[in-house]
Amino acid sequence: MVVSPFIAIDWGTTNRRAYRVEDGRIAATLRSPQGVSTTPADAYAQELAAIRAELGDLPVLMAGMVGSTIGWRVAPYVAVPADIADIAAQLTWIDDRTAIVPGLSFTRSGHGDVMRGEEVQLLGAALAGQVPADALLCQPGTHCKWVELTGGKVTAFTTAMTGELFALLKGGGVLAPQLAAPVAAGDAFREGVREGAKRDLAASLFGIRAAHVLGLRDDADAASYASGVLIGSDVAARIGDGRDVHLVADGDLATLYATAIETLNGRALVSGCEAAFIAGITQIRKLSA
Amino acid sequence: MVVSPFIAIDWGTTNRRAYRVEDGRIAATLRSPQGVSTTPADAYAQELAAIRAELGDLPVLMAGMVGSTIGWRVAPYVAVPADIADIAAQLTWIDDRTAIVPGLSFTRSGHGDVMRGEEVQLLGAALAGQVPADALLCQPGTHCKWVELTGGKVTAFTTAMTGELFALLKGGGVLAPQLAAPVAAGDAFREGVREGAKRDLAASLFGIRAAHVLGLRDDADAASYASGVLIGSDVAARIGDGRDVHLVADGDLATLYATAIETLNGRALVSGCEAAFIAGITQIRKLSA
Repeated sequence: MVVSPFIAIDWGTTNRRAYRVEDGRIAATLRSPQGVSTTPADAYAQELAAIRAELGDLPVLMAGMVGSTIGWRVAPYVAVPADIADIAAQLTWIDDRTAIVPGLSFTRSGHGDVMRGEEVQLLGAALAGQVPADALLCQPGTHCKWVELTGGKVTAFTTAMTGELFALLKGGGVLAPQLAAPVAAGDAFREGVREGAKRDLAASLFGIRAAHVLGLRDDADAASYASGVLIGSDVAARIGDGRDVHLVADGDLATLYATAIETLNGRALVSGCEAAFIAGITQIRKLSA
Repeated sequence: MVVSPFIAIDWGTTNRRAYRVEDGRIAATLRSPQGVSTTPADAYAQELAAIRAELGDLPVLMAGMVGSTIGWRVAPYVAVPADIADIAAQLTWIDDRTAIVPGLSFTRSGHGDVMRGEEVQLLGAALAGQVPADALLCQPGTHCKWVELTGGKVTAFTTAMTGELFALLKGGGVLAPQLAAPVAAGDAFREGVREGAKRDLAASLFGIRAAHVLGLRDDADAASYASGVLIGSDVAARIGDGRDVHLVADGDLATLYATAIETLNGRALVSGCEAAFIAGITQIRKLSA
């Protein structure tokens, strides 16, 4: 089935990317720092009109925090197991050519998890043929998402606030003065990954302070080591003694997570975020048009 | 041996407690918020003169951050294994009746740890006869100290920045709005302890946000649950399937750690901090007078 042109918007907390999609390919892109956190509730209609003025007067599909309680309108979560067809069947329509994609929720034994936005990219990576129907997927970030795909459906997922913990440690407290340097996927990072795999985070992190006091490690390496501890702890909890991980990630985060996965005897296979998002949102458009 | 009266000062980062000690007992106490972090380097002599004016013109032994790079004078660390006699033999003397107690350092396989102040209390608790010569000791706090005592000596120790992580999460980030309530050692705390024992901290913490979004837990319980996750993760890393822990702690922290230890099949035996400090510092005075 041919999909007529439409506009896809990945509208997150701190930024927004809008695409004119033609035949499953990006024909034009608009990037903006106008995320949900800086968009007043009554400004969305006008923002969208401005996007249509740039990209064309087309049907619109939006994903991400735009469908949360701090966004335009709440698009209720779809409970897993769910695949792209389940998501496409439960859009929240603003009008007859403007819809918001729901997020996913997962509840087991009183423990819950949620995602909003990542589901399009993660299932999109699978649709693009880069991920088998049974696989472990990972999208790193402030809140890193780990998804179990079973028979092409998301059956379980875990969010780890790995990136947020790093930001909090960098922003204040006893380690902050040591964490200003950029993070690199070198020896100090890998050493941190192996330490993090002990899964004793609060102690491993204090070790960074002690290493400074005792002069055991060059402080220029402290940020890389700390990032390794946090990412290593996250990866070790997910892959145990090694497993294939399909990363949906770009740039530095892709490099860091791939390095951590390989340090812990796993194998990392990387797909870019944008292509995965376009593949996912195009399929949702096909199924809902 | 009878110890003549002296002044003992526990001088930490954010507060100070000075005691006139007679026959191993507290004869008078001066408490002050004048910690090391708010004391200029050139103000210590004057501060101490004021303490002597209140408590008597006596010999003085100081412990804690007063001996750190941000304190009065650096009292170099004593490497473990070390007992109270090793500490007493390596005081840093300001003048012939004024000394600072050294902290302890521990290095193994390139990994290091340090403590400054807790060693007096932890070894003091053992001297007071409340702790056997081979034991696991714990002093909770911003940086929780866990000490292996072997034949009456500190042979290894681990610091976990458990309290600091809680403070950082409470101070900013996605969980902060949920963590304002006081922490209580009830069902939510114990549930958090069991979750924390999975030692998957970054994921367990995000679960607090997800539980809020999905309405799975009363938000009034979120702070207790979060504290349980952090303390449970710390305790589980130290006691495995259960072990006696000699807590040197007071008040709420003693209750929370004791609850966590018992929830994870350990046994908690509690000694108060002040008595342990006085027992330790009195012995140092005996050995160094």
